Amino acid sequence: MENGMKKQQGFGTNGEEPETPTNITIKGILSLLMASIDGEDKKRVISLGMGDPTAYSCFHTTAIAVDAVVDTLRSDKFNGYAPTVGLPQTRKALAEYLSQDLPYKLSPDDVYVTAGCTQAIEVTLSILARPGANILIPRPAFPIYGLCAAFRHIEVRHYDLLPEKGWEVDFKAVEALADYNTVAMVIINPGNPCGNVYSYQHLKEIAETAKRLNIPVIADEVYGHLAFGGKPFVQMGVFGSIVPVFTLGSLSKRWLVPGWRLGWFATNDPNGIFKNPKMVERIKKYCDICGGPATFIQAAVPRIIEQSEEVFFMRTINILKQSSEICCNKIKEIPCLTCPQKPQGSMAVMVKLNLSLLKDISDDIDFCFKLAKEESVIILPGLAVGLKNWVRITFAVEPSSLEEAMARVKSFYQRHSI
Amino acid sequence: MENGMKKQQGFGTNGEEPETPTNITIKGILSLLMASIDGEDKKRVISLGMGDPTAYSCFHTTAIAVDAVVDTLRSDKFNGYAPTVGLPQTRKALAEYLSQDLPYKLSPDDVYVTAGCTQAIEVTLSILARPGANILIPRPAFPIYGLCAAFRHIEVRHYDLLPEKGWEVDFKAVEALADYNTVAMVIINPGNPCGNVYSYQHLKEIAETAKRLNIPVIADEVYGHLAFGGKPFVQMGVFGSIVPVFTLGSLSKRWLVPGWRLGWFATNDPNGIFKNPKMVERIKKYCDICGGPATFIQAAVPRIIEQSEEVFFMRTINILKQSSEICCNKIKEIPCLTCPQKPQGSMAVMVKLNLSLLKDISDDIDFCFKLAKEESVIILPGLAVGLKNWVRITFAVEPSSLEEAMARVKSFYQRHSI
Repeated sequence: MENGMKKQQGFGTNGEEPETPTNITIKGILSLLMASIDGEDKKRVISLGMGDPTAYSCFHTTAIAVDAVVDTLRSDKFNGYAPTVGLPQTRKALAEYLSQDLPYKLSPDDVYVTAGCTQAIEVTLSILARPGANILIPRPAFPIYGLCAAFRHIEVRHYDLLPEKGWEVDFKAVEALADYNTVAMVIINPGNPCGNVYSYQHLKEIAETAKRLNIPVIADEVYGHLAFGGKPFVQMGVFGSIVPVFTLGSLSKRWLVPGWRLGWFATNDPNGIFKNPKMVERIKKYCDICGGPATFIQAAVPRIIEQSEEVFFMRTINILKQSSEICCNKIKEIPCLTCPQKPQGSMAVMVKLNLSLLKDISDDIDFCFKLAKEESVIILPGLAVGLKNWVRITFAVEPSSLEEAMARVKSFYQRHSI
Repeated sequence: MENGMKKQQGFGTNGEEPETPTNITIKGILSLLMASIDGEDKKRVISLGMGDPTAYSCFHTTAIAVDAVVDTLRSDKFNGYAPTVGLPQTRKALAEYLSQDLPYKLSPDDVYVTAGCTQAIEVTLSILARPGANILIPRPAFPIYGLCAAFRHIEVRHYDLLPEKGWEVDFKAVEALADYNTVAMVIINPGNPCGNVYSYQHLKEIAETAKRLNIPVIADEVYGHLAFGGKPFVQMGVFGSIVPVFTLGSLSKRWLVPGWRLGWFATNDPNGIFKNPKMVERIKKYCDICGGPATFIQAAVPRIIEQSEEVFFMRTINILKQSSEICCNKIKEIPCLTCPQKPQGSMAVMVKLNLSLLKDISDDIDFCFKLAKEESVIILPGLAVGLKNWVRITFAVEPSSLEEAMARVKSFYQRHSI
């Protein structure tokens, strides 16, 4: 009877089970790596795998942010529902924050508050989805884009980022891939997983290319302002009058609170090309089916933005600069690893594996699993972000832990070198 | 040039703009009603429109819950990402909470933590979606089900709830509507918008019907435990060994914190009919694209569940009982309104409009808009929940405000009666 039921279960009866995307997720592969660590190993586990530095005391958020949230919670005024697009005061504060360096001003209605940048990605891709749609995503890229596109039946077309040109966009690839059914191109700046920061000029070229192709740009700026190389962070929205830009962001990285799940997306579209009433209606309705972030966290955003001090931001930038330098210097001591460009922003860097220098490592996956098992160090195989035989190293780690981890990678190399 | 761009914008070029569901949303219609209130009217606005009682001091959450969240936030341990399925300790605490009255025990792996019950609905419908799928939804029903199904291209088939039988399920309709492509049937108990509470026997019949149809039951228990009539609240999960049940819930209503966005869905499936490895994989991957609830709120859940006292729950129940009685008594004084069944649970009740007793009201929409304009009282037109010429009245309102609002409805009736 139970077997009969299993077979006849409504959702799978006619052989058309719902498809599950086959995409690799970072969390999925990291938990497999974690499970493969040798329990007998006395060394502590060090993860250079995920962009969540909050485990280290040097990456604590500012007391201003915590106090602001405690106060809105204790006020008893924000236990109720917020509008699904976000609290008006939160939208206003974010509009002002995001407008600081723009040649025009965003209105509060341009900003939608989401449960982290993840939900901002989900909403943006979902509202663009339609039968036959495709989207241009960089390779390598944060894999949630591919997973989300797969769930929304949007075809993913990967354009390459060019390591030898500082991970800039390969415009020829973009032009070759785009067609009538392309709904947007995605850029991530500062870059995850590459650690690049794009120049004003390169972003302008992206805008002009997108304009030529008649597609909006989805600009993932979740690492916004986390630039510590020579180049300053420039918002893609600066070019919103060339081409409509969806800007995605969150408090997660700059304020070091990824677990607070406070993100946003903004329509940077001063000419009103994209945000016609039908599209706005569609976004609003979509927000109605999302469970956004907690109302009291939203309510704290105006104070968090207003009162957070430059010294807090600079402290993070300085540690990231220091740890990225440690990372690069240690990589130079390990012949099988090459870093084509010193990271200039975000919290991670892509490193090329030279397998010909290793005697018994078949690929990036093999490298990372053996490293986890032998050295209790976790790094992300490049395949998870679309680049086979590379690895992503997160350097947003307390400097002494990072040094220790990289020393273990070095001894791993020495043991496995030809 | 801009005009050219507008026309050729990638997302709409080939005339196939993304479809936006035409569903009415509660928030959408309530904001139109709010906008239609006469600004010159000196009376304060009273909303009986939304299931969010937190504006009234008699519906404040317990200090235990607030303190628990402040402590997890202040601990600085929960600013980082949680697993996308939820923190292990939160899943464990919810599994125990949801197992209290079950004939079997849920495992922590059966529970997925979501951003409110809204996201639990979204996840559940999305993982069941496949080409050609349809879903059975009660009429009347909370409209997010219809909106969510529309975004996921699941056909909605409405089965009636029977007002003369205490809003029980019309099983004949269910049997007639279900077919090979039916992926689930939804029940909402305690009922929104009807205020009904289903008996053990009726829930068992629902389970047996679903079993016969080979479809799982989605049991929306967001108002779980909020039963104040004679009948006790029985979890649908009690019948999980008859048929697989997805149980949806949240802290929102019982703990009076809808803005905290802490919900869940649980797979009540002790025989493992539904939760095969492929389905679990699909749910987990879907969770990866959702931005769940804040980590520190999740971390507070074990303490909130453990320490909340019966006296807090009873206080809410008693106020709801009192206010539901005020509501029913006042309705009896207004001839154009009939309540087929005294509410026994949740926070709202469906009331039938007798238009033949009104001289200048064309339908429920007209009734609600004129009432808003003339009396600054907001109630929800039945059309928003699928029942034309009914209205939904939320009685989770401070009793004196409810009395005043109902007195205004009465004087509105008197002015418009034939």
